[in-house]
Amino acid sequence: MPFIHETSFHVRYAETDESGVVHHSTYLVWFEEGRSSFLRALGSGYDQFVADGIYLPVVEAQVTYRAPARYNQLITVRVWVSEVKSRAMTFMAEVIESQSGQLLAQGYTRHICTDREGRARRVPESWRQLVS
Amino acid sequence: MPFIHETSFHVRYAETDESGVVHHSTYLVWFEEGRSSFLRALGSGYDQFVADGIYLPVVEAQVTYRAPARYNQLITVRVWVSEVKSRAMTFMAEVIESQSGQLLAQGYTRHICTDREGRARRVPESWRQLVS
Amino acid sequence: MPFIHETSFHVRYAETDESGVVHHSTYLVWFEEGRSSFLRALGSGYDQFVADGIYLPVVEAQVTYRAPARYNQLITVRVWVSEVKSRAMTFMAEVIESQSGQLLAQGYTRHICTDREGRARRVPESWRQLVS
Amino acid sequence: MPFIHETSFHVRYAETDESGVVHHSTYLVWFEEGRSSFLRALGSGYDQFVADGIYLPVVEAQVTYRAPARYNQLITVRVWVSEVKSRAMTFMAEVIESQSGQLLAQGYTRHICTDREGRARRVPESWRQLVS
Repeated sequence: MPFIHETSFHVRYAETDESGVVHHSTYLVWFEEGRSSFLRALGSGYDQFVADGIYLPVVEAQVTYRAPARYNQLITVRVWVSEVKSRAMTFMAEVIESQSGQLLAQGYTRHICTDREGRARRVPESWRQLVS
Repeated sequence: MPFIHETSFHVRYAETDESGVVHHSTYLVWFEEGRSSFLRALGSGYDQFVADGIYLPVVEAQVTYRAPARYNQLITVRVWVSEVKSRAMTFMAEVIESQSGQLLAQGYTRHICTDREGRARRVPESWRQLVS
Repeated sequence: MPFIHETSFHVRYAETDESGVVHHSTYLVWFEEGRSSFLRALGSGYDQFVADGIYLPVVEAQVTYRAPARYNQLITVRVWVSEVKSRAMTFMAEVIESQSGQLLAQGYTRHICTDREGRARRVPESWRQLVS
Repeated sequence: MPFIHETSFHVRYAETDESGVVHHSTYLVWFEEGRSSFLRALGSGYDQFVADGIYLPVVEAQVTYRAPARYNQLITVRVWVSEVKSRAMTFMAEVIESQSGQLLAQGYTRHICTDREGRARRVPESWRQLVS
């Protein structure tokens, strides 16, 4: 079983658009905040990776939108690592309406591991234990 | 004494810019989230006002930036109502780095009260008791 | 041959993040601005569709990131319709660094066609001629 | 007379919010894009200042909102330098609906001049001639 992490927050007014629901680009920001919270829960924020000179730039992102999120709703972002390769890894993410448990969106981000200058680096060994 | 409300959250990666710190436009989003949390704490979200056909559009905003906020920091937004007039009101806001208590930014937003069609409306009486 | 539309603008400072390059969520905003410009070029903005009571909410989005965009660069967004079904359609998008012609990112958004209340509607016939 | 610069672009869908008009935080992003375009027009982008090790962080921002901007409108941002001090300067900004010429918002940003490490620096002499 992978390590699954959840974090919750309210939908911000600025995240909505003219159609009355949350703008679709916002979910990538929420996925990322889910990953940040995941890393804080592990005891080492992404900033620690940065401090170590390790970056995880996004090389692919995908989102499937199932139902709209609305202003003021409490939502939960659930993230886990689904794959770790030698120089790449994948995070899965789900966005859930906290009260009803309804799945609003799901997707993934694929990352490569680089140093500060953008050169490929091996994913740290410790990441592998997060998957299985 | 006015009713003062505080809410806390972590700085998101998407909120930073190339200079390495939080982009200055983000503070208006945080002020607004502070107001939303303020209204949730009162037991009636801004969406309730919308449901009642009452809007509080921003007619002026001002921010003084004192120190930069950085990715992953826990910050606290403190908001209160500083003035209620017949058709307008003012929210004050402060952004604080939660761990040190350092003041990062402060400012205000002035709002008018309108109906759905944008016509001026009186600020509900219940708002007046929030100030003093 | 599909109708291909291009629009160009400079990268905004607020679109960058701490890593020094454009935040990955920004590309969905650029794809969307590409679609808006596409519709303006056709002589009927998305707002006209809204005026007609037709919406095209995004049900899936995907982006592959090939090279980073940087502040102040002139970029070109190229969009076209790749598929029109009875109640759904797909827009392809590419982001190009205008001076060098380098491909920075590519992806797609899938949309369903709905009325104002979110009920499925047929994609207008005129859309079909955009594809072939 | 100060050097006044104008730049125009369409309102993006992502810039609107649930109320049907542009979110108030967006105007700070537009002011900034106005300043970027101002600097490009002078023949040296802000990135050149960064290349020279000079930064202009925002220390205060103010916006007065006069009328709402809407999706797909062409807007013009007009910026000029209103004051240059030894270590600080002020940009004024106006947002105009291009077709009607209606003033939608106006405000200013105050900046200090720093080096890469955030230490105060003198504003370059060449900036002074922009004001008068």
